[in-house]
Amino acid sequence: MRFKFPIVALSLEIITIILYGVFVVYDDGKSKGHGHGHAAPSNETKHVEPMTLYPMFQDVHVMIFIGFGFLMTFLKRYGFSSVGVNLLLAAFGLQWGLLMQGIWDLDDGKIKINISKMINADFSTATVLISFGAVLGKTSPVQLLIMTILEITIFAINEHLVVEILGVSDVGASMTIHAFGAYFGLAAARVLYRQGLRNGHENDGSVYHSDLFAMIGTVFLWMFWPSFNSAIAEPGIPQLTAVINTYLSLAACVLSAYAISSLVEHKGKLDMVHIQNATLAGGVAVGTCADMNIGPFGAMLIGLVAGTISTVGFKFLSPILASNLGIQDTCGVHNLHGMPGILGGLAGIVAVALGKKAGHTAAMQAAGLASSLGFGLVGGALTGLIMKLPFWGQPPDQNCFDDSLYWEVPEEEEENEESLAHADHSKNKAEA
Amino acid sequence: MRFKFPIVALSLEIITIILYGVFVVYDDGKSKGHGHGHAAPSNETKHVEPMTLYPMFQDVHVMIFIGFGFLMTFLKRYGFSSVGVNLLLAAFGLQWGLLMQGIWDLDDGKIKINISKMINADFSTATVLISFGAVLGKTSPVQLLIMTILEITIFAINEHLVVEILGVSDVGASMTIHAFGAYFGLAAARVLYRQGLRNGHENDGSVYHSDLFAMIGTVFLWMFWPSFNSAIAEPGIPQLTAVINTYLSLAACVLSAYAISSLVEHKGKLDMVHIQNATLAGGVAVGTCADMNIGPFGAMLIGLVAGTISTVGFKFLSPILASNLGIQDTCGVHNLHGMPGILGGLAGIVAVALGKKAGHTAAMQAAGLASSLGFGLVGGALTGLIMKLPFWGQPPDQNCFDDSLYWEVPEEEEENEESLAHADHSKNKAEA
Amino acid sequence: MRFKFPIVALSLEIITIILYGVFVVYDDGKSKGHGHGHAAPSNETKHVEPMTLYPMFQDVHVMIFIGFGFLMTFLKRYGFSSVGVNLLLAAFGLQWGLLMQGIWDLDDGKIKINISKMINADFSTATVLISFGAVLGKTSPVQLLIMTILEITIFAINEHLVVEILGVSDVGASMTIHAFGAYFGLAAARVLYRQGLRNGHENDGSVYHSDLFAMIGTVFLWMFWPSFNSAIAEPGIPQLTAVINTYLSLAACVLSAYAISSLVEHKGKLDMVHIQNATLAGGVAVGTCADMNIGPFGAMLIGLVAGTISTVGFKFLSPILASNLGIQDTCGVHNLHGMPGILGGLAGIVAVALGKKAGHTAAMQAAGLASSLGFGLVGGALTGLIMKLPFWGQPPDQNCFDDSLYWEVPEEEEENEESLAHADHSKNKAEA
Repeated sequence: MRFKFPIVALSLEIITIILYGVFVVYDDGKSKGHGHGHAAPSNETKHVEPMTLYPMFQDVHVMIFIGFGFLMTFLKRYGFSSVGVNLLLAAFGLQWGLLMQGIWDLDDGKIKINISKMINADFSTATVLISFGAVLGKTSPVQLLIMTILEITIFAINEHLVVEILGVSDVGASMTIHAFGAYFGLAAARVLYRQGLRNGHENDGSVYHSDLFAMIGTVFLWMFWPSFNSAIAEPGIPQLTAVINTYLSLAACVLSAYAISSLVEHKGKLDMVHIQNATLAGGVAVGTCADMNIGPFGAMLIGLVAGTISTVGFKFLSPILASNLGIQDTCGVHNLHGMPGILGGLAGIVAVALGKKAGHTAAMQAAGLASSLGFGLVGGALTGLIMKLPFWGQPPDQNCFDDSLYWEVPEEEEENEESLAHADHSKNKAEA
Repeated sequence: MRFKFPIVALSLEIITIILYGVFVVYDDGKSKGHGHGHAAPSNETKHVEPMTLYPMFQDVHVMIFIGFGFLMTFLKRYGFSSVGVNLLLAAFGLQWGLLMQGIWDLDDGKIKINISKMINADFSTATVLISFGAVLGKTSPVQLLIMTILEITIFAINEHLVVEILGVSDVGASMTIHAFGAYFGLAAARVLYRQGLRNGHENDGSVYHSDLFAMIGTVFLWMFWPSFNSAIAEPGIPQLTAVINTYLSLAACVLSAYAISSLVEHKGKLDMVHIQNATLAGGVAVGTCADMNIGPFGAMLIGLVAGTISTVGFKFLSPILASNLGIQDTCGVHNLHGMPGILGGLAGIVAVALGKKAGHTAAMQAAGLASSLGFGLVGGALTGLIMKLPFWGQPPDQNCFDDSLYWEVPEEEEENEESLAHADHSKNKAEA
Repeated sequence: MRFKFPIVALSLEIITIILYGVFVVYDDGKSKGHGHGHAAPSNETKHVEPMTLYPMFQDVHVMIFIGFGFLMTFLKRYGFSSVGVNLLLAAFGLQWGLLMQGIWDLDDGKIKINISKMINADFSTATVLISFGAVLGKTSPVQLLIMTILEITIFAINEHLVVEILGVSDVGASMTIHAFGAYFGLAAARVLYRQGLRNGHENDGSVYHSDLFAMIGTVFLWMFWPSFNSAIAEPGIPQLTAVINTYLSLAACVLSAYAISSLVEHKGKLDMVHIQNATLAGGVAVGTCADMNIGPFGAMLIGLVAGTISTVGFKFLSPILASNLGIQDTCGVHNLHGMPGILGGLAGIVAVALGKKAGHTAAMQAAGLASSLGFGLVGGALTGLIMKLPFWGQPPDQNCFDDSLYWEVPEEEEENEESLAHADHSKNKAEA
């Protein structure tokens, strides 16, 4: 760790800056065509008002940096890494994502940055942050930087294939971001399986205030998800539709997540893990058909189902995946992004088959789902193999879920713990 | 609790989804008229740019879910319930509010959702979250869901009466949301009076970090209050006026809240309860006349007075209400929403009498205030009686203000406390 | 303290309200000219859409109240003061700043408030909050209110001189806010030097969760800095350019801050102080030339350098400043705002010399930097002398960095500490 991390981080940044020097310019509003894929408004719009999407961008930005960052602070001794490494990966990932996505859309050999491209760059980092959730606490910053490069590169290929070549509709990216990111992370986690953690780890849990920090992430994700699903929608009514569908799906999802959490837990109590995560599944699952005319009723049904399967997944499926398949999914991304992402893809297939979005076919939607799952699983497995190479500073089992391996942690609390230990010690002495 | 909560929550959500299937459609921009009451922009505006109000909506959304949610996390052992149940009630409430408000404004027998209606739906939940503050820690989730349905229904009736039928001006809803919600909650709290809590409860207090979590709520409410008071104002200068008046009233209010807090406390110290709450009273009190030409000077005077009466209320009035009238107001909503809401209504009467808003009369403004107080007090008392029925899982006195009754609470901290207890125990042994 | 603080706070507020009564009116969109300096859009724009800048304003608002407020909560026992006094100073400062900035731009003898003026008022408070960071934990609320008045007054003079009279370009205010505010605070801290703190103070450090609270501030500042640097830019492409440059500079800065932190720390670990602060230096340093055509490549280089010098400053320079020059800089504002602010000024000189912004000269840019440093250092030293007068309730050394001097602090934790003390005591007894 001593020099590996600084060398890797600085080298990556310097290479990136050189690539930006060669390839990246400001968008002057006079671009040749559509901008990046399905997202960019027409030339005239951009020329007239280049800042129109800026509030949407900032909402997405908050989801990436506060939302994902704090959602993962639920672990009692891993908060610095959660929010800190989240910032590191996202800050590097957006630079890399802008390059990888821009390659497919060169204009005079240049990538022209605008707000729409910045939104897409933020989106590309979301895949990494989802996968980060699966391997949280068990990987080094160097491993995660490598994952960032590989995952965003593979994401950009799959997204181009699915959206541009296959012409799949996936405005809120249930398939290309959520399902892709989740199965990528799960495949990597499978490859990085640790026998030593099969009976759990004392730091793999929360304390009271760490759960409250995590709720900051949850609530910001929940509030701004309508922006995530509508940011790159067609302006006007389709964008409004995407906002409304996401708002309603999320609202319905909260009720089912709470109800099912209480139903499956001991004495009808609520479980913070479900509340922090499953309440968001409605945003994931309505993503693909967010801008389609599925009706408020349809959006709410999707949310209701998503909250249910996500909560059930946390309670019953995650332990099975860990014990039977060797998939140790720290944050339960399978339940928040994996299954709801597939549900979103399936809902999109049905919606397109019912004619809810002209110019798309159910078969192509299905191909888009299959492609996203395939790229995710294969890409994640290969990336996991590379991450498993023995010189990236992977933490030993006993130091998992512990900030103090990579961070200077305040001594104060250690002292407190020490005095508690002394107190216990004195108890033993006294009793003896 | 075992099955009651999941059954009630799921049933309510399924009924709501069915009602949405029957009544709710997207707004296609071709509606017949004004949309909901005083709020909606004209047809053309909506048609041209349906997303204009979206940033305002998101500010209000943050106030509802982060602002109210974290403001109530000040209690040491009730943070999960504060932010978690806030999310539950608001997520259900906005669905119910959109129905209850939309009933008065059907278009071809349908409620047409748009951003303006979503803002009003969020507003309707604010009444519930205010009342939630009065009964915080002493009610079960099932009781609170029942309160949500009843309060939003009564709110929608009163708001329609006051704004549409009486033609009262209340752009920032000092009367229809704040005074209504506060006296509704206080009346319910009176009915739910607990003899066993008259000498306080060991969990009815804060710890250092819970007070900091609460400040997240305070500051987000404070910052975005100009959006709350201006979101449904007439576009253009009136909306700008509402922003400016609220911004200045809140700024002045901070100074008086701090000064009075220091003046009334032991040794001139500041009290976090005052800072978390009374600094917001200026936003409440300037609500009714936010879009009126009261002058920056007038707005600041309102804020100065609001911060003063709110702080004085926390220090001197709340204890009297509890001991003499049996009103146990956990969050002091009487001081933050009740008195400042009445002050706002009175300021509106004066401003209208001085001709600050054409087309309104002081008498009707007074009627609006009286109606809001009356509906609040009577509605809250009746709702309290229904909540008092013995089968809603109301917590026993000794479990009040304690998350562990309804939530799985991390064991870690309990262990710490246990070792502290052991330590104390060992002290006794050693001394013996 | 008993009566000084309430009297000072109330008097200042009442005087301010009277001044607002005399001088301040709403902007009706019919102003004579440019509004405040470089910032205001043209008349027509304002008349057509007075709310255009409102989302930008709210982003800046979040930076001032959440960003600065929570960034300073890293101290273990000083969180109430950090976020609470931040709210007090900013709420008063924005009122005062609007007056001080408005004096230079009267229209018929009146200051006309609009969103642009509110953004500038928020900006003026940033200088105070930066200086607050230098003297954090060692000053009373009364001292800080006095600093607020003086610093904002001096800021407004320097800004008018630099931007209006010298015609300097400083869109993101690297010089007029960051360098000015930092050296003002450092000069004041020098005057207020405390011999008794030269060996540190037991409360001058963080605990685990206080560092997480601080990250809330860091991340909100990081996310919304593009709004800070672009809020008052020329609408259209220049504003977009300011957003893009800031976004990229900050992203590159994260990588260098992390890399250098790991490089200079023990065992390659990351230090939270660096992550909380140095990751933001890219936003400061790109400020002056944010709206210039420096290229994405240029913006990233500035960020890379800023993150490096800021981290190195925290590690090596701050201890030297404290021990050799007697500058006790609690938050290290020299590293976050001082050096990066100068770097921003220098980058602006180079960019203007290279013709990146028409209508400006390198010589004038240099004069702007010199003026900002001069006004900051001299103004800060004079203000420090006034703050040093013995009747403002300055805390004694042993009560520094401790909320309990000015705040009612929850007893709960003290009890815990007491039981810890008892536990330790029992240990001694038992061992004896």
